[in-house]
Amino acid sequence: MDDSKKADIAVIGLAVMGQNLILNMNDHGFKVIAFNRTTAKVDEFLEGPAKGTDVIGAHTIEEMISQLKSPRRVMLMVKAGQPVDETIDKLIDHLEPGDIIIDGGNTLFTDTERRIARLKPAGILYIGTGISGGEEGARNGPAIMPGGDEKAWAAVSEIFQSIAARGINDQPCCDWIGSGGVGNYVKTVHNGIEYGDMQLISEAYALLKSLGLTNAEMSQKFNDWNNGPLDSYLIQITAEILGYKDKDGEYVVDKILDSAGQKGTGKWTVISASDLAQPISVIAEALFARFTSSFTEERQEAQKIYGTRQIASPSDKEFLIDNIGKALYASKIISYTQGYMLLKAAAQEYNWQINYARVAGIWTGGCIIRSRFLGDIQHAYAKNPDLENLLLDDFFVNAVKENEQAWRSSVSYAVNSGIAVPGLSSALSFFDSYRTDRLPANLIQAQRDYFGAHTYERIDKPRSQYFHTNWTGEGGITTSSSYNA
Amino acid sequence: MDDSKKADIAVIGLAVMGQNLILNMNDHGFKVIAFNRTTAKVDEFLEGPAKGTDVIGAHTIEEMISQLKSPRRVMLMVKAGQPVDETIDKLIDHLEPGDIIIDGGNTLFTDTERRIARLKPAGILYIGTGISGGEEGARNGPAIMPGGDEKAWAAVSEIFQSIAARGINDQPCCDWIGSGGVGNYVKTVHNGIEYGDMQLISEAYALLKSLGLTNAEMSQKFNDWNNGPLDSYLIQITAEILGYKDKDGEYVVDKILDSAGQKGTGKWTVISASDLAQPISVIAEALFARFTSSFTEERQEAQKIYGTRQIASPSDKEFLIDNIGKALYASKIISYTQGYMLLKAAAQEYNWQINYARVAGIWTGGCIIRSRFLGDIQHAYAKNPDLENLLLDDFFVNAVKENEQAWRSSVSYAVNSGIAVPGLSSALSFFDSYRTDRLPANLIQAQRDYFGAHTYERIDKPRSQYFHTNWTGEGGITTSSSYNA
Repeated sequence: MDDSKKADIAVIGLAVMGQNLILNMNDHGFKVIAFNRTTAKVDEFLEGPAKGTDVIGAHTIEEMISQLKSPRRVMLMVKAGQPVDETIDKLIDHLEPGDIIIDGGNTLFTDTERRIARLKPAGILYIGTGISGGEEGARNGPAIMPGGDEKAWAAVSEIFQSIAARGINDQPCCDWIGSGGVGNYVKTVHNGIEYGDMQLISEAYALLKSLGLTNAEMSQKFNDWNNGPLDSYLIQITAEILGYKDKDGEYVVDKILDSAGQKGTGKWTVISASDLAQPISVIAEALFARFTSSFTEERQEAQKIYGTRQIASPSDKEFLIDNIGKALYASKIISYTQGYMLLKAAAQEYNWQINYARVAGIWTGGCIIRSRFLGDIQHAYAKNPDLENLLLDDFFVNAVKENEQAWRSSVSYAVNSGIAVPGLSSALSFFDSYRTDRLPANLIQAQRDYFGAHTYERIDKPRSQYFHTNWTGEGGITTSSSYNA
Repeated sequence: MDDSKKADIAVIGLAVMGQNLILNMNDHGFKVIAFNRTTAKVDEFLEGPAKGTDVIGAHTIEEMISQLKSPRRVMLMVKAGQPVDETIDKLIDHLEPGDIIIDGGNTLFTDTERRIARLKPAGILYIGTGISGGEEGARNGPAIMPGGDEKAWAAVSEIFQSIAARGINDQPCCDWIGSGGVGNYVKTVHNGIEYGDMQLISEAYALLKSLGLTNAEMSQKFNDWNNGPLDSYLIQITAEILGYKDKDGEYVVDKILDSAGQKGTGKWTVISASDLAQPISVIAEALFARFTSSFTEERQEAQKIYGTRQIASPSDKEFLIDNIGKALYASKIISYTQGYMLLKAAAQEYNWQINYARVAGIWTGGCIIRSRFLGDIQHAYAKNPDLENLLLDDFFVNAVKENEQAWRSSVSYAVNSGIAVPGLSSALSFFDSYRTDRLPANLIQAQRDYFGAHTYERIDKPRSQYFHTNWTGEGGITTSSSYNA
């Protein structure tokens, strides 16, 4: 076949994301080959959603490879983990030096680094890319976060930037993130932040509901909020969900079981933050809240035992409703602050050069967390690429100060009414820790020195001088250099 | 040498824990050989703390081995991680089938499982044991949590149970925990709980301090609390620390830098809980609080920007002080509940048979978290070994109910006064989640179905039936079976 008639890219894996990405690429004038392990899916796709397009189907790897332009671009949209390795196993002998494999799944960043190392001897270039936007984003423009072999970027940038959403200033929501597994890492943190956002929204929903608002009223309230600083995809779809009725005229949201699933990326964010000593408490609480939600039967039993709490009646309901939106916004600032702290710590640990402003810019469109707010974050980092912490940027200082009192009132209302607000209250506690020059951690250091001779630093001495007190008069002078607690 | 004159056990590693364990074993009539990689430490130890005892020193591995009874018992008190493997490397050729290596460090449980597998072909038995009690516990009676090759237990039980502390009902604070890495795992969770306890105590200290109490008054208050349900080692030493003055008559606690260290086990608890889908929020917040405390300079900068908050003046200060103790107690119940949830999930995942009552009993003496309270936990599990959750046990139901209002008042005071209480408020949020039959997680499931076609279960249908709504009227019917979010 004449190379010019060959396809630009192959996509392996025809679940919803794979199908929609193919159709998106087709719309932008790229010729795509679709392949799937279960080949019946190829035919279904060609006869179904891809009918009338230029998409070609392949029923074997060989057939797929023979119809690809050089360098061959093969994108995997299969389940993360073992299936990716298995697909690489099948591909590797059919590819030549300079060919490119792109993994578009929610892959653990260290897996991508392992695969880059594996494929290097064969000269095959590898990209691990985050893709966000779900079903609809994949079809009409996702946010794309590629990382890996930088040499591969020039060969895929046109396709990826064409199919990506447009974000702030009409920039494509896709750019080269950096080397190794950084594309997957940034996507993982994106998903962690998404967990946080969803948890905070669900707490706002619980608070509004406790005040007796109907679904229609709550839908309206989220719509109102969507016209202010909370303007975002997740707030918008929350408004739609709360207003959505089934054929029988009943609200679907009220029929849905309150047991939330999770599939790995939120967990990875928490694990990485624990490793890198970064306090991403809002995301962790969001993850734990999903875990707790799954104890459905135990919770029902506990409710019987502990009873239903009386809602504290607010003196001014409208004012409290307004406060809840402000609490949500302030907590969102904390969650993103924590997410960016994690990105920064990871960049330092793994020697990545992350352009924080550009990452925020990429997230302004296409992805699940897209929002006006991310434009403000982009602005903060564009103004000062070395910004130590979002909470020290003028815009966010003012935003937090303006909403602080409303935030405290909302959490206080929740605490007194027995409404669980792990996200809102954890965000507030983080803020109150971060803005406090003297925390009670001196007592923790004293305890560690008391029972474990762990030593401590002093406020009246330079850092890195360590002191030990013989608190009981009985311990020895041996300090603990080799034992952990 | 006549075998009867040989030593009962060798201990490698003469940091404070190793030295004190040796002296403890010597006190109980066991003949111990002390060895250290840097042999000067052996001589220092024999001329110093071990002078006048029956402890023997060894300057080479060969010398150490030649003086050990069969089966040889060699205990490693070296830094966890690589040093343990290196010591095993040096030992392995000198040992015979049936000999026993015991690692007494804070080892990651999977490392113990790897080492068991490594030593199996050589017939060498391996134990990974948790040891808690710090310097003083090691010397006078620690809590010991051994796991690994069960065949080794008979050969070490006499030594370990003799040197262990005595707990509730005068039982030794040492018993066989089970196979594989379970001894280390139980110790890891113990340490995680210790992180939680220390954080909660430090928050109570911050709250008391905000009310203007002096160190002497706070010391007295912790002493008072130590005579009630909070009776525990950590509360007792907190009272001592708050009362402790330096030679110059100044309180040491006020001079200690508020930047708390951590060395791994708290982090492992959070990582394992994330893996096993268990919401151990209090321990996680305690870990994160230590992380945040280390941002000393940033916090000072933030304090300047955000200012100092006005403390909300309580109407009845004495009442609030009393409430703080109750909030601490209720939060402690939550933290231990979460710790036991994690133990249960780990036992299920790794096929361990954990005797939950006995673990609580072991923890009633010797270790850092020893308390009256652990006797209550032992009682709950002894009464009902299949207890689903501590929060469903009568004793704890009543304890939580009695303290609930005081808990809410204390957290509310903190929230309004700008005092960070990540532990107390996270505990309360968990309780409010756990005791709620309908959480707002239905909205999260709706969102996930909206943007990712993740499907949901319904409250009016049996479990494990999954539904998808075409929320926008535009999405396809393809659901997401192979993509994560």
